[in-house]
Amino acid sequence: MSSKAAVLVAGSWGTALASVLAANGHRVSLWSRSREQAEEINRERVNKRYLPNVRLHESIRATDSLAEAVEGAGFVLLVAPSSAMREVASRLKPLLTGDECLVHATKGFEPETLKRMTDVIAEELPQFDPRRLVALSGPSHAEEVIVRCPTTVVVASRSRQAAEEAQDWLINSTFRVYTNPDVVGVEVAGALKNIIALGAGLSDGLGFGDNAKAALLTRGLAEISRLGQAMGAQPQTFAGLAGVGDLVVTCTSRHSRNWRAGYGIGQGKKLDDVLSEMNMVVEGVKTTRAAKSLAARYGVHMPIAEQLYEVLFNGKPPKAAVEDLMGRGRTHEMEEVARSSGSWS
Amino acid sequence: MSSKAAVLVAGSWGTALASVLAANGHRVSLWSRSREQAEEINRERVNKRYLPNVRLHESIRATDSLAEAVEGAGFVLLVAPSSAMREVASRLKPLLTGDECLVHATKGFEPETLKRMTDVIAEELPQFDPRRLVALSGPSHAEEVIVRCPTTVVVASRSRQAAEEAQDWLINSTFRVYTNPDVVGVEVAGALKNIIALGAGLSDGLGFGDNAKAALLTRGLAEISRLGQAMGAQPQTFAGLAGVGDLVVTCTSRHSRNWRAGYGIGQGKKLDDVLSEMNMVVEGVKTTRAAKSLAARYGVHMPIAEQLYEVLFNGKPPKAAVEDLMGRGRTHEMEEVARSSGSWS
Repeated sequence: MSSKAAVLVAGSWGTALASVLAANGHRVSLWSRSREQAEEINRERVNKRYLPNVRLHESIRATDSLAEAVEGAGFVLLVAPSSAMREVASRLKPLLTGDECLVHATKGFEPETLKRMTDVIAEELPQFDPRRLVALSGPSHAEEVIVRCPTTVVVASRSRQAAEEAQDWLINSTFRVYTNPDVVGVEVAGALKNIIALGAGLSDGLGFGDNAKAALLTRGLAEISRLGQAMGAQPQTFAGLAGVGDLVVTCTSRHSRNWRAGYGIGQGKKLDDVLSEMNMVVEGVKTTRAAKSLAARYGVHMPIAEQLYEVLFNGKPPKAAVEDLMGRGRTHEMEEVARSSGSWS
Repeated sequence: MSSKAAVLVAGSWGTALASVLAANGHRVSLWSRSREQAEEINRERVNKRYLPNVRLHESIRATDSLAEAVEGAGFVLLVAPSSAMREVASRLKPLLTGDECLVHATKGFEPETLKRMTDVIAEELPQFDPRRLVALSGPSHAEEVIVRCPTTVVVASRSRQAAEEAQDWLINSTFRVYTNPDVVGVEVAGALKNIIALGAGLSDGLGFGDNAKAALLTRGLAEISRLGQAMGAQPQTFAGLAGVGDLVVTCTSRHSRNWRAGYGIGQGKKLDDVLSEMNMVVEGVKTTRAAKSLAARYGVHMPIAEQLYEVLFNGKPPKAAVEDLMGRGRTHEMEEVARSSGSWS
């Protein structure tokens, strides 16, 4: 195993994961599209734009050359926004052998095709056995990971060996890494929870309280689990770190940009204003579009995604949307499962 | 249906549920053991001790006479602490006909016997068909319910008709009530989530961050679901309002007394000092003892309950306990379910 790791790109999550790899004794090459940002990181030892308050490990070196970043790397970590994943992967095609441990940590679908990230990567990088691609997810705010707050994540791959290889690169005493065979579930849960986080922010922005948010989160988990299962995921994954764990941290933490975007909209701001204020990608906005399309494609009822779509793109007042969600629910909680179990005899 | 409801006793949750019933047009008799408290509530129209900032509905009348409270009531709601439920129920034996809609909203086990609340009530009130007893649970801080923040709860009964009758008494536009046939699951989830909330408070008190708390909560949900299923609960209930919903609100809200108790201990305070400061029952402390016994009785692995027991009753430093929980986990997330599904082939 080479001890060089490449991380693409230098956003907040990429920079935090680069720090984990560096702490584990690896040399880390951190790719930025911007020469200015790469030089600034190397000069100041800080990622000023995304994680301005943390000094970076000396083994992290930024570069704006993708070829230089991945040259000799045994571990390649893709953390591009979902809309840029295909382009980054396609640029890697001539640069990778196919023997690298290839992991992505991006939570979202490709906007136009609605494809999962491992499918996008597999299409662009035919030299890799698609079974060996790895998806990393779980409750892990970058701001906490980089200062070594205890964190747990999941690495999912159809190959146990590949998942365990990724685990070996990343695990340490404060960053616990668990393997999971359910790539579909881990990817779908990670993408869709951002919608629920937007909805939770909306509810909080309206001042509806913790009881309402907990109800939304519970319904949201059921809703994304339904879609996930229709797409081939295991239901247990939604009860695990990549499901309920990530959902909770995203819906309740001040670090969550999806929650913050929803909160701003709940307080009456316009979507465009909220997004331009935030200076970061808010995956949940794109994912709301994707979820609406996927719900139709797979014939799954997703009321939260539906209401959120109306608020974000059709000007529905947030208060009316959340009230519709609260009021219209079924009166028998187990209706969805009553056919198989848990019903009155 | 009589339009009189009785609520026993006048704690914060009882008072909040009395307000829901009053808002629905019912006359409500609110029982307090203390004549002084009953008189104060009737004079000041406020429950000064538990919900000091909210003026009570004029249809609520407090009394220190249990006979007066339940006389002519078609709906009787028991909200005594778990340790007092048997005594209150036994005092009701000569006072109730057995035709009342009898609901309890207490989250905990009887301390010595480890019995669920509906079993305790059934033993003391033989005039009731045990199948018709109803348990109310879900994500519902009293402080929010009483000011009409949108809230969802579950009423569980082995009798669909009884559950629907309870639903009719309680439901309104901001208090949504769902029925569920799984009494065991709803009672076990409601009791056990208090342990996880204590653990979440502990983690927060230690300053471990949102990622660690989300991990604890995810593992906690799995752990209480395992015990619940061993006791006869449906796994779906733990994914619903009484499970993950209540767990989230209890672990992340500033209103939660269990979280606050854990937080104080995480900050280095002694259990006795924390409890005496709080002036309220902290069910999770008793439930930790109960869970340890139940885990042994049913042969279920409950690492969070185990570590919490060590902290609360054997002087283990909180930091060592939480670190043990973070570090020792299995490396394959799906190990528990791998035998049936979700494993690598």
